[in-house]
Amino acid sequence: MKQIEDANQEALRRMLAADPVLVDVLPAAQVIPELTDRMILHAGPPIDWERMCGPMQGAVMGIAVFEGWAPDLETAANMAAEGAFEFHPNHHFDAVGPMTGMTTLSQPVMIVENRTFGNRAYCTINEGLGKVMRFGGNDDEVLKRLAWLRDVLGPAMGKALGAGDGLPLKSLVARGLSMGDEMHQRNVACSGLTLRGLSPAMAETANDTHDLAEALAFVAGNDQFFLNIAMAMGKAIMDPVRGIEGSSLVTAMSRNGTDFGIRVSGTGDTWFTAPVEMPEGLYFPGFTEKDANPDMGDSTIVETIGLGGFAMGAAPAVAGFVGAGAASGAANFTRTMGEITVGENPEWTIPALDYLGVPTGIDIRLVVETGLAPSINTGIAHKEPGVGQVGAGVVRAPMGCFRQALETFAESVGVS
Amino acid sequence: MKQIEDANQEALRRMLAADPVLVDVLPAAQVIPELTDRMILHAGPPIDWERMCGPMQGAVMGIAVFEGWAPDLETAANMAAEGAFEFHPNHHFDAVGPMTGMTTLSQPVMIVENRTFGNRAYCTINEGLGKVMRFGGNDDEVLKRLAWLRDVLGPAMGKALGAGDGLPLKSLVARGLSMGDEMHQRNVACSGLTLRGLSPAMAETANDTHDLAEALAFVAGNDQFFLNIAMAMGKAIMDPVRGIEGSSLVTAMSRNGTDFGIRVSGTGDTWFTAPVEMPEGLYFPGFTEKDANPDMGDSTIVETIGLGGFAMGAAPAVAGFVGAGAASGAANFTRTMGEITVGENPEWTIPALDYLGVPTGIDIRLVVETGLAPSINTGIAHKEPGVGQVGAGVVRAPMGCFRQALETFAESVGVS
Repeated sequence: MKQIEDANQEALRRMLAADPVLVDVLPAAQVIPELTDRMILHAGPPIDWERMCGPMQGAVMGIAVFEGWAPDLETAANMAAEGAFEFHPNHHFDAVGPMTGMTTLSQPVMIVENRTFGNRAYCTINEGLGKVMRFGGNDDEVLKRLAWLRDVLGPAMGKALGAGDGLPLKSLVARGLSMGDEMHQRNVACSGLTLRGLSPAMAETANDTHDLAEALAFVAGNDQFFLNIAMAMGKAIMDPVRGIEGSSLVTAMSRNGTDFGIRVSGTGDTWFTAPVEMPEGLYFPGFTEKDANPDMGDSTIVETIGLGGFAMGAAPAVAGFVGAGAASGAANFTRTMGEITVGENPEWTIPALDYLGVPTGIDIRLVVETGLAPSINTGIAHKEPGVGQVGAGVVRAPMGCFRQALETFAESVGVS
Repeated sequence: MKQIEDANQEALRRMLAADPVLVDVLPAAQVIPELTDRMILHAGPPIDWERMCGPMQGAVMGIAVFEGWAPDLETAANMAAEGAFEFHPNHHFDAVGPMTGMTTLSQPVMIVENRTFGNRAYCTINEGLGKVMRFGGNDDEVLKRLAWLRDVLGPAMGKALGAGDGLPLKSLVARGLSMGDEMHQRNVACSGLTLRGLSPAMAETANDTHDLAEALAFVAGNDQFFLNIAMAMGKAIMDPVRGIEGSSLVTAMSRNGTDFGIRVSGTGDTWFTAPVEMPEGLYFPGFTEKDANPDMGDSTIVETIGLGGFAMGAAPAVAGFVGAGAASGAANFTRTMGEITVGENPEWTIPALDYLGVPTGIDIRLVVETGLAPSINTGIAHKEPGVGQVGAGVVRAPMGCFRQALETFAESVGVS
């Protein structure tokens, strides 16, 4: 149908025209005014306390203590069960969050502005690896780190960004793709490029060289630092693609650890959900698939814009990390995702594939037709609250979301 | 001959056992006590003023003004012609230098220690791209930058390195190979990893945040910053491989812009030379091959240890930069160099080639037998003094060096 092709071309045009720039870091409440006391934004489609998985419940307990809403984790859990907290998806407030994806009023969020369309998107700062809140960690070490991000690193980044014109992300990601990153499970290059971009201004605006040294060491020591920036970028790119009548392109994929949800441009902000799947991957020493929580997080916004599993061909080294077979086979993931997308990104190319653009614009019709669900590179959380990351792997988006979405979409364009 | 195989295995063992660490930055005169007034170390095998190419003469003129030995460039040239300066190869003083490779007493040198063998090697700090002394530049802008490297960046790096245990380079290069660097014409990743490694300590030891910001910005803005570190590393790795009786492995390849010279383990410190060749490559806008100086610099120490042209398969993006054909063909360079080397480096591997180790240990017998000369990725200088870099390309080491070396080597092992 020409109406659908035209709508999808317009959606693709908006994706490719995006100009995402990291512009500031500010407390969440300052940029999301609706974010008030005892309100918690989480990853994925809407969910209530009872249906939340272990790590998300663990993160809720931890963030309630962090925000001073509960004196300890147990009280926090009881309060949550009694309905003391209001839960909403990040996606409903221009935000995204990795894994459990907790966003609350006092946390600093990085702000990515899409300069072509004027919209902004938000994501908290990446905490590093291991026992961290996004993987369900909630002890003193985790909360202390969050306080340092709030009090030291967040303000330092905000000051540095405010001193210049922001950090343009489109070209930074283009470089990252030529340096082995796919921006979901491998962000070594982009994290380094971010440090290159920010460190001079961080030095110029520093009050205290010891705090500065700690801030630089934190960014330098966190190979996944860029993930959260990539996510805010993904949200900033996709938000202007929402609500194009007749477009069958996916505008968001997201999971809360219980449900996987997608949104499609032509069907507005409706979530189409199905139970999340279990990643297949590799586990850190001492853990097995028995410890694993199913798939979780807003980070699939990265695949939605053609990176992550879609850009695996750029990142042969990640194939081994996520247990996806031989490094030389990484290109196959990218080529396969080309079968469910409507275009390629001419500015985000993969040198080893002779500058093939990353597959861009997931068409739910192609997904259902081919039976090829989007392939996602993901971290794996322990299923119990309070433990943290136990591995990394590859997971498929559940086909159920796409079938449901296609039904509703077909009705919307009058071909049911 | 078993004697030769054994000697080459010992040479290879020493190469692979090396543990190069960037440990300090100090004025050259402090670490090379022989380096006195009016003495100039240069790239390549020995050469006198009359036979020096244009850019090397230009660099000599510039460094003489920089060191205060001459009031202006013209006087410096006259003094050089009258024999006022003493010229020696960097290689004779544990040093290496890119392109023209000027090393003089007041310049800061980076010190790489090979912790396995206890030896040290030196290289000046990379000046950035464009009009710089290593490409024959010698005006005020060039000399001002050298003064800043001497007065600000060198001491800042030295202090930062002194505050810790140095920057281990073996693992850093291993990461760089998984991030698209070959460490000769592409050092984007390793330069970033160096900034990651040094910036926290640079902040911790900074006196002045403005100077610090400038220092970080200089490193962050120079994609070739790591080249000079890679070169000092190469020299530190290869020096303990010198003088192994019966070994036919190359211990140094180097060019002064007029002659290409190699040294072979079993024949000691003799240089075997032949006229340098002209790189085939791509030129910056406004320049053509008519402007180009032939091949120059000590940087071929990088190919001597299995990187640069030998590791092209790790760096598909560099293929286009040096005009070496399709990105997907980069692996062929690495595979071909495997035919003239005696081993692979199990710690320096290329993910896209399913973790093939870089080809290591150039055997002059294999070079002469196969007719395959080592393939080198190189920058191209303008042939006139004072201009700078005009392009980048690929060049072959001249076969004449290897044939001569093989003759002498054969005599030394009694099979002439």
